[in-house]
Amino acid sequence: MAPSSPEVLLWQRARDPHTGRWALPGGRLGATEDVEASVRRHLAEKVDLGEVAHVEQLSVFSDPHRGPAPRRVATAFLGLVPSDADPAVPDDTAWHPVDALPPTAFDHGEITRAGLDRLRAKLSYTNIGFALAPEIFSISELRRLYASALGHRVSATNLQRVLTRRGVLVPTGSTAAPGPSGGRPAALFRFSEHRLRVTDPFATLRPPDC
Amino acid sequence: MAPSSPEVLLWQRARDPHTGRWALPGGRLGATEDVEASVRRHLAEKVDLGEVAHVEQLSVFSDPHRGPAPRRVATAFLGLVPSDADPAVPDDTAWHPVDALPPTAFDHGEITRAGLDRLRAKLSYTNIGFALAPEIFSISELRRLYASALGHRVSATNLQRVLTRRGVLVPTGSTAAPGPSGGRPAALFRFSEHRLRVTDPFATLRPPDC
Repeated sequence: MAPSSPEVLLWQRARDPHTGRWALPGGRLGATEDVEASVRRHLAEKVDLGEVAHVEQLSVFSDPHRGPAPRRVATAFLGLVPSDADPAVPDDTAWHPVDALPPTAFDHGEITRAGLDRLRAKLSYTNIGFALAPEIFSISELRRLYASALGHRVSATNLQRVLTRRGVLVPTGSTAAPGPSGGRPAALFRFSEHRLRVTDPFATLRPPDC
Repeated sequence: MAPSSPEVLLWQRARDPHTGRWALPGGRLGATEDVEASVRRHLAEKVDLGEVAHVEQLSVFSDPHRGPAPRRVATAFLGLVPSDADPAVPDDTAWHPVDALPPTAFDHGEITRAGLDRLRAKLSYTNIGFALAPEIFSISELRRLYASALGHRVSATNLQRVLTRRGVLVPTGSTAAPGPSGGRPAALFRFSEHRLRVTDPFATLRPPDC
């Protein structure tokens, strides 16, 4: 079974240009802020920032024809909230599966796909899973999150082994309540850190031990 | 012995602000170009673009106080030329070791260090070495380039083994002329591709074979 796609938060434009189309949260850079401060300010109008686990700069989108005049250059960010977060959002705003986007405004479809590409890449060599997972989770839950983001199946056994070896996964010592069908209770885990870290610098290129 | 540092191309400002300080090549975004086209246009004023082996977007630098008014937001790029390139540059322009920069204009010292950080990271999980190396090289030459960029010693044996396993290094079948002291002639290699490719997606996160 194909894993379900991650979702992106979009709002439906009520005004020209692109009335009715769906857009990423955003807005203009203020005179006294940098782009990082600006993205947090604009995002705060849509969601509770306490639930945003990670934000990073993605890329500049600057095609002169990306929107009608006056020209705007966009600095795009990737922001992640854990799977169990359920932030209150305004009436014009909703979550959409990345693989089944509604008609999007400007180049926001392209930006969304660039964000997913970045997430997929960083799942490979960083601990970025911390920003997708609840505080405490079973390996089976974590496997579903990785599979959803990566768009392919992931082996739970292998995932646990590798994340443990990287030192990013820590057993809590407790187990989940058994489901209605009984069975062995699942061990619960957490991420050791909630700050992005490169976990897989290539071995050859590390400083030699001696 | 510590490896020598990579060098960055800077030009010395002849006008305020920051007269006499050294700046990265750059300039304003034109009305009909995107930032990628703009960086190539501005760079072409300093070097022969045929020698630029790789260019990629680095990050936006947008501190409101990064320069005097009027405010400018910079999109910074990392551009690499092979070690044997020797582009003609204007009189006001020169190469400087990244670890011994002269006084820099604006936040260009910070941008330069961000570029080096990006290069170091990408040496770990991509074939980006192609943009640093001459067309044909010995492992010993390649080792020096990696050590210089990474800032630490690198084992030639290990480097050859790993890059071969990644499929990015190809033997040419020829050898270098022996040096004045004679000895065994060094085998010569080339990169299999001259386009950036991620070589080390983490094994767990690849699609399963079955």
